[in-house]
Amino acid sequence: MSEHSPLDLAEGDPFGPHNLPYGVFTTADEPARRRIGVRIGGHVLDAGAAAHALGSPHADLLGRPSLNPLLAAGRAVWQEVRRELTAWVTDPAHRAAVEPLLHPLGTVELHLPYEVADYVDFYASEHHATNVGRIFRPDGDALTPNWKHLPIGYHGRAGTIVVSGTDVVRPTGQRKAPADPAPVFGPSVKLDIEAEVGFLVGTPSELGRPVPLSSYRDHVFGLTLLNDWSARDVQAWEYVPLGPFLGKSFQTSVSAWVTPLEALDAARTAPPARDLPLLPYLDDAEEEPGGYDVRISVEINGEAVAEPPFSTMYWTAAQQLAHMTVNGASLRTGDLYGSGTVSGPETGQRGSLLELTWNGRDAIELADGKRTFLEDGDEVVLTAWAPGPDGTRVGLGEVRGRIAPAAG
Amino acid sequence: MSEHSPLDLAEGDPFGPHNLPYGVFTTADEPARRRIGVRIGGHVLDAGAAAHALGSPHADLLGRPSLNPLLAAGRAVWQEVRRELTAWVTDPAHRAAVEPLLHPLGTVELHLPYEVADYVDFYASEHHATNVGRIFRPDGDALTPNWKHLPIGYHGRAGTIVVSGTDVVRPTGQRKAPADPAPVFGPSVKLDIEAEVGFLVGTPSELGRPVPLSSYRDHVFGLTLLNDWSARDVQAWEYVPLGPFLGKSFQTSVSAWVTPLEALDAARTAPPARDLPLLPYLDDAEEEPGGYDVRISVEINGEAVAEPPFSTMYWTAAQQLAHMTVNGASLRTGDLYGSGTVSGPETGQRGSLLELTWNGRDAIELADGKRTFLEDGDEVVLTAWAPGPDGTRVGLGEVRGRIAPAAG
Repeated sequence: MSEHSPLDLAEGDPFGPHNLPYGVFTTADEPARRRIGVRIGGHVLDAGAAAHALGSPHADLLGRPSLNPLLAAGRAVWQEVRRELTAWVTDPAHRAAVEPLLHPLGTVELHLPYEVADYVDFYASEHHATNVGRIFRPDGDALTPNWKHLPIGYHGRAGTIVVSGTDVVRPTGQRKAPADPAPVFGPSVKLDIEAEVGFLVGTPSELGRPVPLSSYRDHVFGLTLLNDWSARDVQAWEYVPLGPFLGKSFQTSVSAWVTPLEALDAARTAPPARDLPLLPYLDDAEEEPGGYDVRISVEINGEAVAEPPFSTMYWTAAQQLAHMTVNGASLRTGDLYGSGTVSGPETGQRGSLLELTWNGRDAIELADGKRTFLEDGDEVVLTAWAPGPDGTRVGLGEVRGRIAPAAG
Repeated sequence: MSEHSPLDLAEGDPFGPHNLPYGVFTTADEPARRRIGVRIGGHVLDAGAAAHALGSPHADLLGRPSLNPLLAAGRAVWQEVRRELTAWVTDPAHRAAVEPLLHPLGTVELHLPYEVADYVDFYASEHHATNVGRIFRPDGDALTPNWKHLPIGYHGRAGTIVVSGTDVVRPTGQRKAPADPAPVFGPSVKLDIEAEVGFLVGTPSELGRPVPLSSYRDHVFGLTLLNDWSARDVQAWEYVPLGPFLGKSFQTSVSAWVTPLEALDAARTAPPARDLPLLPYLDDAEEEPGGYDVRISVEINGEAVAEPPFSTMYWTAAQQLAHMTVNGASLRTGDLYGSGTVSGPETGQRGSLLELTWNGRDAIELADGKRTFLEDGDEVVLTAWAPGPDGTRVGLGEVRGRIAPAAG
């Protein structure tokens, strides 16, 4: 045992025992053996090995190569496992058993930790939806008439969700500016980001049975950061009348870490006041606060370009879940839904380049030149944190992606 | 062995040895053991048991509880397995081994035979898109400007795809007629069908690598009938700007049978002439004919209400596959894509009640009363056939669903 234990964390470490996000990792000497890991400080605890060594009744669930069996086990098990993990990383009696099972973050490879079932993306920021409406439909109302009555959303492509660190090959497709006589084909010239928070479903539901607002915590396991890469030129040409398709489906990147809802209790916050009365299935006036005070940071090539505040979202994750199932649609373990781009009221709080540059009109200045949309070689990193108990911060990991040139 | 063998089929049986669609079944005495079955006449051949009895090298693939491993095995294996199956049901030398492995259709339960990965629905009938445009956007052009340049499509909910025979619980949701001051909530009053053909992907593709038109047969395993149930009132209120969501996601029904592409070679037909030049990745002038002469029949409560001709579809399945991947999006085994509603030029060829009744304006007459949209208790059955070799017909099975009242 080393003199300085990896479990002796600096005060205020955002990955302290109050956080304990889940991921899946491999080591260099066993690159084919995927294991569930729990992040503590700068290390990853081999959760299955710890559960085995310490005689946990959940050693089987934690010994799997994916989070899905744990997700499917339901809230009572999530709570038990979290209590055990907390004891393993805090109780000095367990140190001798736990320390050999800690891997420095820099020595492991992180993988997409769950198999995605269905992926839905919402559009829940009033500031974002207003900005997009003004840009794309300058002659109409910025918000469509339905926007404040229901959380607008659509299904995305589950099969192209990748883990942070995966390159983004610039997509190719059709685009047509209004003045062009015909569409042209080629690499997107308006490649963009969308800074979002994703919600991962654990407990499934039955076909034909809506999930009410009050059951949100029984179904949703945790949060993850998400970047919904978007080709704005492809999207603008294709999206009427059936919505975004190829402008989004080439890739969506998520954090390697999933933060359990329980780690975010101190971050709950009331959503903004609603302007219009809500139908009963969406009325959350009597529910616990549905927002989260998650502070996102967007960096391009190491420079901060925006700080979108998740607390400003009009629609909450519980409302999105209730809406998504109100028609009887069932949930599966591994369903993932994104909040939609997070944008606050200030210019520096916008979660997309579309908004930050007003569709390319106002370039932003980076140390290596101006940007309207992303250039090949650019690296985008989303990070985030939320208030934890007793003045701590809960780190939400990062979503990193570098733009690779279009396929030849 | 019986005097009259189940393999001695009536001449012209649409499920003869020229067809051999795949499904998954269970028997009453082993309700938990799902098995791959191949339909021959009025019987289901236990394909895994036959492969085992006859020493097939593919006994493992055919012995699984789902088609997915066979789908993933690729085109060369699909061809080998089909050759074997054809021999087993036609060669008198195999009769003694095969006959005991045939189950009468009425004695088995059929299941969804594959796990759906991503589900995409297209909008490929010019007649359908024109009708819908006229109904929903009477003041604008019927077709959006992009319609003849690319196959419009969107992602649907894979988790609510069910096998033929599953009841459809009437969905509940928001709707708002233009004159209403606010949305109302309740069971859909415009529950509809969409008669479609679905295409099931077997061979996956790599992220970042588009699949060209010429590779269609390497990736797509077969066809299946599909009913994309739609709540028109929910859809009309929600679909601007991000497309259909809850108006579709409550349920999609598919046939229990998947017909391999090879059984449909005689049904290939040239698509309609295109009005506008196509970008090279969609230009199929030099490819084999991309359409299929599939004749669909729509029945409600046993009465024929429409006969949509699939041969009239503007966009082909190969074009849809090329478009879906041109941005680099990858395919997974089990991806399913629907053609979009099949509607021909004649009134009696329309594949939705929206079109058949012009959004409820012109009721259709059934023996048990008028219909604008579906009523509780109505049963919808889609069937279809296509020309096979030597004047035969290839049956495409059926998609059956009865409307159950909204959940209380």
